[in-house]
Amino acid sequence: MGLENETRGLFLDLYELTMANSYFLRDMNDEATFAYFVRAPVPNRRFLIFAGLDPFLDALAQFRFSNSDLAYLESLKLFDKAFLDYLADFEFTGDIWAMEEGEVCFPGEPLVIVSAPRIQAQLIETIVLNILNYETLVASKAARILIAAGEEAIVVDFSPRRDHGMEAAVHAARASYLTGFHGTSNTLAGKLYGIPVVGTMAHSYVLSFPDELSAFRAFAEDHPNPVLLIDTYDVAEGARNAAIVARELRGKGRKLPAVRLDSGDLAALSQEVRRILDEEGCPEVEIFVSGDLDEQRILEFKRRGGVARGYGVGTRLGVSWDLPALGGVYKLVEDEKGPRMKRSPGKLTIPGKCQVWREGFTDTVALDEEFGKGRPLLRRVVRRGERVLPRLDLAQRREEVRERVYSLPPELSDLTPCRDPRYPVRLSATLEAMLKGAK
Amino acid sequence: MGLENETRGLFLDLYELTMANSYFLRDMNDEATFAYFVRAPVPNRRFLIFAGLDPFLDALAQFRFSNSDLAYLESLKLFDKAFLDYLADFEFTGDIWAMEEGEVCFPGEPLVIVSAPRIQAQLIETIVLNILNYETLVASKAARILIAAGEEAIVVDFSPRRDHGMEAAVHAARASYLTGFHGTSNTLAGKLYGIPVVGTMAHSYVLSFPDELSAFRAFAEDHPNPVLLIDTYDVAEGARNAAIVARELRGKGRKLPAVRLDSGDLAALSQEVRRILDEEGCPEVEIFVSGDLDEQRILEFKRRGGVARGYGVGTRLGVSWDLPALGGVYKLVEDEKGPRMKRSPGKLTIPGKCQVWREGFTDTVALDEEFGKGRPLLRRVVRRGERVLPRLDLAQRREEVRERVYSLPPELSDLTPCRDPRYPVRLSATLEAMLKGAK
Repeated sequence: MGLENETRGLFLDLYELTMANSYFLRDMNDEATFAYFVRAPVPNRRFLIFAGLDPFLDALAQFRFSNSDLAYLESLKLFDKAFLDYLADFEFTGDIWAMEEGEVCFPGEPLVIVSAPRIQAQLIETIVLNILNYETLVASKAARILIAAGEEAIVVDFSPRRDHGMEAAVHAARASYLTGFHGTSNTLAGKLYGIPVVGTMAHSYVLSFPDELSAFRAFAEDHPNPVLLIDTYDVAEGARNAAIVARELRGKGRKLPAVRLDSGDLAALSQEVRRILDEEGCPEVEIFVSGDLDEQRILEFKRRGGVARGYGVGTRLGVSWDLPALGGVYKLVEDEKGPRMKRSPGKLTIPGKCQVWREGFTDTVALDEEFGKGRPLLRRVVRRGERVLPRLDLAQRREEVRERVYSLPPELSDLTPCRDPRYPVRLSATLEAMLKGAK
Repeated sequence: MGLENETRGLFLDLYELTMANSYFLRDMNDEATFAYFVRAPVPNRRFLIFAGLDPFLDALAQFRFSNSDLAYLESLKLFDKAFLDYLADFEFTGDIWAMEEGEVCFPGEPLVIVSAPRIQAQLIETIVLNILNYETLVASKAARILIAAGEEAIVVDFSPRRDHGMEAAVHAARASYLTGFHGTSNTLAGKLYGIPVVGTMAHSYVLSFPDELSAFRAFAEDHPNPVLLIDTYDVAEGARNAAIVARELRGKGRKLPAVRLDSGDLAALSQEVRRILDEEGCPEVEIFVSGDLDEQRILEFKRRGGVARGYGVGTRLGVSWDLPALGGVYKLVEDEKGPRMKRSPGKLTIPGKCQVWREGFTDTVALDEEFGKGRPLLRRVVRRGERVLPRLDLAQRREEVRERVYSLPPELSDLTPCRDPRYPVRLSATLEAMLKGAK
């Protein structure tokens, strides 16, 4: 798409530029504060996992306008020349507070707060929303899948072929790994983020040999850690062929780690395959399943007695199948005239600079000058345009997040479908009073 | 994300590389043919619009392995040194046949066919699927939205804030414009593809002024073509304020093109706003609506008497809300040993190199050497690695596709929900016989 030669400046909705042009002409560039939050309720999500902060900060650092960007904007005949000159030197100089990546969080509370000269704060709206909405969406879905699979299971991301573009695939691999996945099939994400890469074999490999057993033998010879796909022809025969290879490898001091099932009635087939592998003297060969899995299908698989050491989760993770977009918004909450709010029905905005205080899993949103109980969740990550947050150690953070996901209280880890979840988020008395006054 | 410095070579699922490594070691690199097709049925899609070919061919041209890619792969300790040397010189030298972008097409027929040395054909699997699945998904959704809105309506893409990353947003803008949308709010897509860019104003703009009327007056003064967002406070008052500005602009020989509604009961509010604008002597001011719209909501809006000249469609277009991923697959269909097929239940593959012949809207899939009736849909776009397809003239093609979308027969343009659509696709007698033999 030629994106590799593009700055990030033009990635915005046109109205941000036309508004900014107007602010510029009117010298309306005092500090303004915007909050990024998700409006409640979010169906089927009793909690969210905040993700995407590092990629957002990277995009912010690249948020500049090249000469070709400026020439393009000039051609639109919508902007004042002086405004375009301003864009030529654009640099974000504001402050940003954000939750930590991997934090459990909820709709109805600010996840990120941006304070900057009004034009700057307005122009970054699209990159805030686009990146944080998507990674938080995937991380939140990944947490549900991990809970369904259980702490003993190995869960990996197989989503690249169905994700919405290459960049989406890299975000999906990152967000799911951050949350506790074990790896990804996405080799580019492996390189960029040090995520363990995993893979088995495709049906086309098996079809490329005269018969299944020859294909299995060849793959086992050429791959140090082969996982054999046993459903190209007949699954029972596939399991027996895998057992032959497992025994042959054993003779060479090696091991067949697993077989993979990717189609059919996975619960029933996995039991049959387990039985065959055991009968054939290969109890050490594990079963790995894949094929349009998500948290509900994994629960159903287990309920029906399915046997699996691991799950490959693709399409339904990467596009967050049951909730394919997160309705995060970025709203003006304060400017030089004080707290601001929009009063449209059902679209109330919490006014003012806020902090979120957490005690247990109960959050209180309070004005910045109030002092709440528990621990504050928003930390300053950018000060006067300079990033002060150290780069995330993804592998280390993954350990912490994974542990958190598996120790959520039952009212949060409950995966039962729910159209209208209630969240443990309340407002401080001061904020309540401000909002009452606004109604 | 640092993607701007990356080649496209590493964007693959690891198993493509481990299989390729094995093929390489065994000198299994004869020509193989893979087909890209969507498995039937696709719920709620009575037809698809094929899209993403040019972006795919661009990615293919960039499909190389840099030194840092190769160093990363070496670090995985999965690959033979000679194979990595082969990757260092990787270049696609095969042939590709594809439908034209914007073509109406169906699940169950090949949309793209790749013939190349086996390793090459295997390694490009992820870029084929990732790009074509997503653009075809969005184009197919866009066509439904256009049909619901009607030929007289102006329909624009407002999806960037909810799309899955920046690249997804550019794909979404491109695919929806190709299908017949009028423009996009995505300024980067505007620059890259010459798509008309559109935008109005945000609630934050209105909130940045002492009152709504001041905000409207300022925006009208600073923008040559202002569209005023009238639902920040009270919609009726917003409409009256817009009428004041419309009359003031008229006095200066200018015009207020439209107002926008983005929340509440759009059908009821649009009627009230129309009435107020007419009463205030502003029948020329059009109404533009937005807010979680899709084809079903637009139909409902119209059924309830909603009045709108145009629709801004965001979230539900860009993530194809009711069907967030297209299950396109890329399967080995022929190699030096002849046609190949996988026989798993429900996952039958059409074997062999094929052509699709269209008469009216009935398609016949035939072997390449057969001669069908009507027009052949697959054209050679890459010959021995060289692109022979001229770059798409997006604006011109949009006109043709738009016309096609609005002249679909009723059995295809029907938007009624349907879990199991039947498609006008049949196999030639020869293919039928081959598949019967395989069962």
